Amino acid sequence: MKISQTTFKLPSFSKGFHLIDDIVISYLRQLDSVHTGVLHLFIKHTSASLAIGENADPSVRVDLENFFYELCDNKPYFTHTLEGSDDMPAHIKSVMIGTSLTIPITDGRCNLGIWQGIYLCEHRNHASGREIVMTVMGN
Amino acid sequence: MKISQTTFKLPSFSKGFHLIDDIVISYLRQLDSVHTGVLHLFIKHTSASLAIGENADPSVRVDLENFFYELCDNKPYFTHTLEGSDDMPAHIKSVMIGTSLTIPITDGRCNLGIWQGIYLCEHRNHASGREIVMTVMGN
Amino acid sequence: MKISQTTFKLPSFSKGFHLIDDIVISYLRQLDSVHTGVLHLFIKHTSASLAIGENADPSVRVDLENFFYELCDNKPYFTHTLEGSDDMPAHIKSVMIGTSLTIPITDGRCNLGIWQGIYLCEHRNHASGREIVMTVMGN
Repeated sequence: MKISQTTFKLPSFSKGFHLIDDIVISYLRQLDSVHTGVLHLFIKHTSASLAIGENADPSVRVDLENFFYELCDNKPYFTHTLEGSDDMPAHIKSVMIGTSLTIPITDGRCNLGIWQGIYLCEHRNHASGREIVMTVMGN
Repeated sequence: MKISQTTFKLPSFSKGFHLIDDIVISYLRQLDSVHTGVLHLFIKHTSASLAIGENADPSVRVDLENFFYELCDNKPYFTHTLEGSDDMPAHIKSVMIGTSLTIPITDGRCNLGIWQGIYLCEHRNHASGREIVMTVMGN
Repeated sequence: MKISQTTFKLPSFSKGFHLIDDIVISYLRQLDSVHTGVLHLFIKHTSASLAIGENADPSVRVDLENFFYELCDNKPYFTHTLEGSDDMPAHIKSVMIGTSLTIPITDGRCNLGIWQGIYLCEHRNHASGREIVMTVMGN
């Protein structure tokens, strides 16, 4: 078994859910190739998340953004408010959705389902590019 | 360290939370045995999830289903509705609960807590069997 | 690649979100050192979670506790109620937040973002120390 790792920065995305498969795969190609293994992605932030989600219909990502906004924003009891009204909800969404993904690699490729894509979930209104640590392990 | 991987299909389950430990362990026995390591499970779908949950009292799984239904279903602002009223909530639950699990292997066995079981969380009303990629790494 | 694993017990924490980086790192030092790899943490319980969250302002952790309480507690339809009113919400939070973390190791250290910390999320009112299985893989 071998392991290789790299860190890269995503471009800046608007608030919402975004497909980043192409970006992830372009960086994956720079690492040692693996036939059978796992890919680990870790986002080094507390106001953005990584998730696996539907990759075909953009309305899914719109509905996700609206759902998590309704669920987490504008709570009257929030005390962590100095950094803006989008900050505390961002921390909650990050805890709820999670900051890492582990995806199987099979026959040298990410073994996602046909409808699955890799989401960057950007929870801030005005964020700069997010840093991701990518690790590949396998044979 | 060694790695081995397989893909298998679960039987079709009804909407709700279901214990699948026995099925997972039967497929795990087909892979190279590992004394110390990790087991990774990945479900190749965007409307079902994998989770670790209470394994003893079926009422926990009933309450989980009712909780996530109340939380995620029937939102008036959903726009992704063509595939049925259970579809967009399923995508949300999948993002919220997650599509993969990593479980330690110790002394050749899944090192779960005594009350922990492996859940398939089926979010659709009428789903066929779900595909899972299982990877074991360790010594 | 090498792998090493240990199990340890956290001290008892009050209900809420707590930073446990120092404890995790002290046990990590007892395992084989790894330059490049991943650290896997798994909590062997169904009423507590592990998460990555903001590490600087304690008000974030207060707001998280209040948010998840408002979201998950005191549902009139709960049927799993024999073990107290904090029990079923604890199972839900555990499914929602998750029982494991995978963190990259880079240059021999946990490669967390500058604002990221490791949370024990204690969902019970009166819990004893929680057991964690820690696995390190890498070179």
